[in-house]
Order: sequence, then C-alpha cells, then structure tokens
Amino acid sequence: MSFSHLSPLSFVRPAVDAELEAFVERRRALVLGIGAELRPVLDALDAMITGGKRLRPAFCYWGWRGAGGGEERGIHQAAASLELLQACALIHDDVIDNSDTRRGAPAAHRRLTELHATSGWDGDSASFGQGAAVLLGDLCLAWCEDMYQSSALPAAALSAGREPFNLMRTEVMAGQYLDLLNQAKGSETVEDALRVMRHKTAKYTIERPMHLGAALAGRGPELAPVYTAYALPLGIAFQLRDDILGVFGAPEETGKPTGDDLREGKRTVLVAETLRLTSRTDAAEFRRLLGDPKLGTDAVDWMRSVITTSGALDACEERIVGYVAEANRALEHEALFANARPALADLILAATERKH
Amino acid sequence: MSFSHLSPLSFVRPAVDAELEAFVERRRALVLGIGAELRPVLDALDAMITGGKRLRPAFCYWGWRGAGGGEERGIHQAAASLELLQACALIHDDVIDNSDTRRGAPAAHRRLTELHATSGWDGDSASFGQGAAVLLGDLCLAWCEDMYQSSALPAAALSAGREPFNLMRTEVMAGQYLDLLNQAKGSETVEDALRVMRHKTAKYTIERPMHLGAALAGRGPELAPVYTAYALPLGIAFQLRDDILGVFGAPEETGKPTGDDLREGKRTVLVAETLRLTSRTDAAEFRRLLGDPKLGTDAVDWMRSVITTSGALDACEERIVGYVAEANRALEHEALFANARPALADLILAATERKH
Repeated sequence: MSFSHLSPLSFVRPAVDAELEAFVERRRALVLGIGAELRPVLDALDAMITGGKRLRPAFCYWGWRGAGGGEERGIHQAAASLELLQACALIHDDVIDNSDTRRGAPAAHRRLTELHATSGWDGDSASFGQGAAVLLGDLCLAWCEDMYQSSALPAAALSAGREPFNLMRTEVMAGQYLDLLNQAKGSETVEDALRVMRHKTAKYTIERPMHLGAALAGRGPELAPVYTAYALPLGIAFQLRDDILGVFGAPEETGKPTGDDLREGKRTVLVAETLRLTSRTDAAEFRRLLGDPKLGTDAVDWMRSVITTSGALDACEERIVGYVAEANRALEHEALFANARPALADLILAATERKH
Repeated sequence: MSFSHLSPLSFVRPAVDAELEAFVERRRALVLGIGAELRPVLDALDAMITGGKRLRPAFCYWGWRGAGGGEERGIHQAAASLELLQACALIHDDVIDNSDTRRGAPAAHRRLTELHATSGWDGDSASFGQGAAVLLGDLCLAWCEDMYQSSALPAAALSAGREPFNLMRTEVMAGQYLDLLNQAKGSETVEDALRVMRHKTAKYTIERPMHLGAALAGRGPELAPVYTAYALPLGIAFQLRDDILGVFGAPEETGKPTGDDLREGKRTVLVAETLRLTSRTDAAEFRRLLGDPKLGTDAVDWMRSVITTSGALDACEERIVGYVAEANRALEHEALFANARPALADLILAATERKH
C-alpha cells in the first residue's frame, strides 16, 4: 500500500477500523455471555466508535513511521486502542455537559435514556441513561488499556510505550477538569484557555500519541522533543480551528446545532479575545448571553458579529497561521524519517483547514 | 512477619496501604504540575482510598500465597492496584445512585459540589460536583492499570495476570449495569438478584482477585477452579450479609443512615424473599414503600418487621450458612498451599460474620 494516493488519515483508517472492530467483537461475546440485556449498551458503544476521524491513531501511527517503524500489524492495534480512550472521553464528556448529540447522532446517555423511556421501566429515564453511560465509558477506558496491552508488539516495545500511554490518560482527565473549572470560574483570559487546550487537546490528541508511536518503535527519547515541537503548536491550531467551527460551522459539518459552543458557554481563546477586544458595552452583553442554553438565532448572529467585528476572529486565524508555520518548521528535523514527512505535513492541513 | 498473630486482612493491610500511598504520591506530583487547582480533586481521591477494608487486595494476596507465592514486594503493589479500581467503582456508583455519603463521610461528588458552592462559582454546583467526580473516577481507573502494570513482578507474571485482571473490570461494569436494570425493571426474583451478586460482588471482590494472585504466582490454570469453588459461594454469602446490614445495620457500622438500602430500592435477595414469602397485602405495601427516598423511621421499622416475620431474614441467614460451608469445603483441595488455608478460612469469617 502506498501513501502517495491517500491522505495520511485515510491511509491508516482501514487497518485501525479493522483492529477496533475485531477487538470489540471479541469483548462483545464476553459481555453478552454475562447477560443478553447488555446488548443495547454494546450498541451504544458501536455507535460511538463508528465514524470518528481516528486522529489519535493516525498521529500514533505516523509517529511510529517517523521513527522508522514499518508496516506491522501490532502497531495498528496499539494505535487503534486510543479510539477507546477517546470513546470514554466523549461519552463521559456528553454526560458532564449534558449534551444531546454527538456527531449528529444522539449522545450515548441520550440513547440509553431513550431505551429506559420506551421500555416503560421504573424511575427517572435521564438518571438511568446517565448512569448507564458512566458505566459504558468506564468499560471503554478499561478496554483501551486491554487492547493496547494485547497488541502484537514485543513486550519491550509495549513497556517503552507505557510512559506516554499513561501520561496521556492522566493529562486528558486533568485537562477536562481544568476546562470545567474555567467555565465555573467564568475565566476570561487567553492564558487559561490556552492551558486547557494544551492538555485537553494538544498533548492528548497529538503529542502523546506521537510519543507513543516513537516509543513503540524504540526511539522515544530521541524523537519526543522533535514531536513535541510539532505537536503542541499544531494541537493548539487544531483546537482554535475547532473553536471557530463551534461558533461559525454549519450543523452538517460539526454534527451540532449552529453556535452550540456559545450556548454551552465554552471558555475558548476566541471568546477571551472577543471580550478583550470589543467595547465594554458589547462585552457586558456578550457575557450575559454566553452560556445561555436557550440562545436564539438572533442572539447567536449578534454574538458572531461581535466576534468578527471586534477582530477576535482574525486574531485567531492569525494565531493558527503562526502555529501552523511553527509545526511545519519542526518537521525539518533530521532525526525524522524522511518518508513520514509528507504525511505529517498533510496532517497539519487536515487538522487545521478551514471548513466554513 | 508471621500471620499467626494477625487477621488475614490486617496482615496484608500495611503493605497494601504503603504501596497505594507511594503510588498516589508519585502521580500527585504529576497532576499538580498540570495545575495547582487540581488539589481538591486529589484530596477527594485521598479521602476515598483511606479507610477501606482492602478486601480485594487481601483476596489477591492470599490467592498468591495459596498458590505458593512468597513475600515479594511486587505482589503488594499489584494487589493494591485493585483498590484504585474499587475507588473508581465507588465514586461512579455514588454519582449514579446520587448517594450523599460513603463510609460515613461525604461522597466524592458531594465534596466537589461543596467546593463549587463555597467558592461561589458560576453554574449548578451539583452538576459541577458530578462532572468532576466522573473525571476523578476515570483517573482512578486509569491509575489502577498503571499501578498494576508497573508492579515489580516479572513481565511473564504480569502478562499471565492479564486475563483475570481484564475480566474483573469488564465483569464489574456489566454487573453494575445489570443492577441498574434490575432496579429499573422492578425485578423481584431471587435469580436476578443472585446474578447481579455473582458478577458485581462474588467475581469482582473475591474470585477474580484470587485468580489474579494465582496467575501472578504462575499457577493460574491449576488453581482457578479451586478458587472459584471457594469464591463464588463466599462472595454471595458476603453480599447477603451486606444486604442484611443495609437494612438492619447501625449507621456507625455501615456508614449510611439506617435502612438506606430500602430508600434506594435495592433489589436484593432479601427483598425478593420477602416479597415471595409475605402476604399479598403486605407485599403490595412493601412494594409501594420500596425505593421511596423520603421513607421515615416508622416505615423502615414496618418493612424490617415484614422482612423478619415473613421468614425472609431467616431464609437469608440459612443461605449464608450453606454458602459458608461450601466455601470451607473448597479449602480442602490438595492443590492449595497449606499455609494459606487458615487465612482463607479466616477470610470467610471476616466477610460473613454478623455485625448487627
């Protein structure tokens, strides 16, 4: 299989999907052996792991290739295991934020709430759905590690991958807590938003998966700093793009209603820049509206116009350009295997291109 | 250190506590490096892992000893890791059941709700507390496995322990879901209650930890059936005792208000037996009261009297006697190292003795 005809994401995807499906299928039999009533939970899991972009597995795989790793089956399983961590993060995140949808489909807790309601069971349907989704997320987290550790890679390689693998899990949960905290504190600084991005996105989505790939290929210490220099700016650029899409993106692209990030009151760099740059009057009104779950189209339109006219949108686009340039420069490092460079360069585009 | 002067629980406890404390201390530094604001989350974790009975580590340790394992430091760390899985299960269980207390102290989500309320932050304090507790439970689950895998035992031993270690995590989450389902369905059969006990308690608390101990000692295949014959009846007896305490136990013993299991509407064997044995009129009234969170002392007293006079309490006590005898018989197996037999016999007593 040659990379030249495919994007670096679609190149990795079939193998990652196949490994994920095979693993979940084996565990599915085990779970149904415990009780056939667990089928709807497994269906909710299937819905959750279908259709993601497989970003983390892709960065892990290209981190491996950039360190000289070849086409071994084991790397696909190890890389694919990160999708189960992501499934846990998304399922729990939707419970925490009480979000109704995920990628345009009902969130896992909403599916399980629906199961309760249509079955006519006792008690509160929403509580049942949330409880079941917490357990499903736990299952995904346990399986992530089960899948990683049972990859067909040498024990020494898996052992070398432990440090980034462990850091990744701690950092994403810490980052998510800091995100909760920023919202609770009504944080308005660019610095606070950047710190959450750093842990919740840049390290979790790009840096640690790449460190993992390098460590599995036996070149962790040598390549970790090179990958960090690429991953941190790219991760922040990726999140900035995502934040812009969360305000300006069309529902068919984001899988969420237009302007949903404003209704959720997300404390993004875009919001922090807006509050810093706009007039005091507009900032006061913007603050008042931010986080109102009932925000109508007019209010969303007004908030978008403030984001644009204040210069905050342009400021974020400029940041993205700067970070993208920084990530590209990091790829010039000689320790990197040359045949992975085009893919890592394409991943910069894939993660940060305008879609609105 | 000789076992003869100590109970099998207190024998293991200091080493387990020391390993747990050392591991969490190392990870604490990592988390505080991400953000000093994470301190209250770590404090909630400390509160959660202080003061448990360390049942699962004890069964793992004595499973190891029964398989001929010696006093190696690595086994204490591997056994202690199970407390972090238990911490996850308890933290998430309290979120799911919306329980206020755990072992007489505020549940983790209540502590974090309180933090939000006293800090005067934006948004709903209860939502913040629940969200933060979901993340904290995830952290515990990730750390459980991190701690297990970094134990100072040979790689081949840790690899042999993977099967019970993985099954344990899947089974407990499946068992908890079936428990949610039994409550939602208003299940009234002894069979349903026994199936939940089997997965949520017997396998999770006793069988799999013992299988893990045997596998780590390199004698998994030989001892697994012996341990199963001991663990499943003992686990059910243990849960039956716990269910009786949940209705009749004093608050200072159970750490929960008297009769709390009746308020929560737990679908236990004790409840199923009561509904089966009592008069139709009393059963109807019992059903009506069961699960009412506002149940007063008079109603609890009346329900207790129905449980007693119907013969359900005696029926459960008889079941306990039968299961205890079965567990004791299993200890006669010759594959078992003789010097672990007294401890395993004492663990039967410790897990099932009357405390009310």
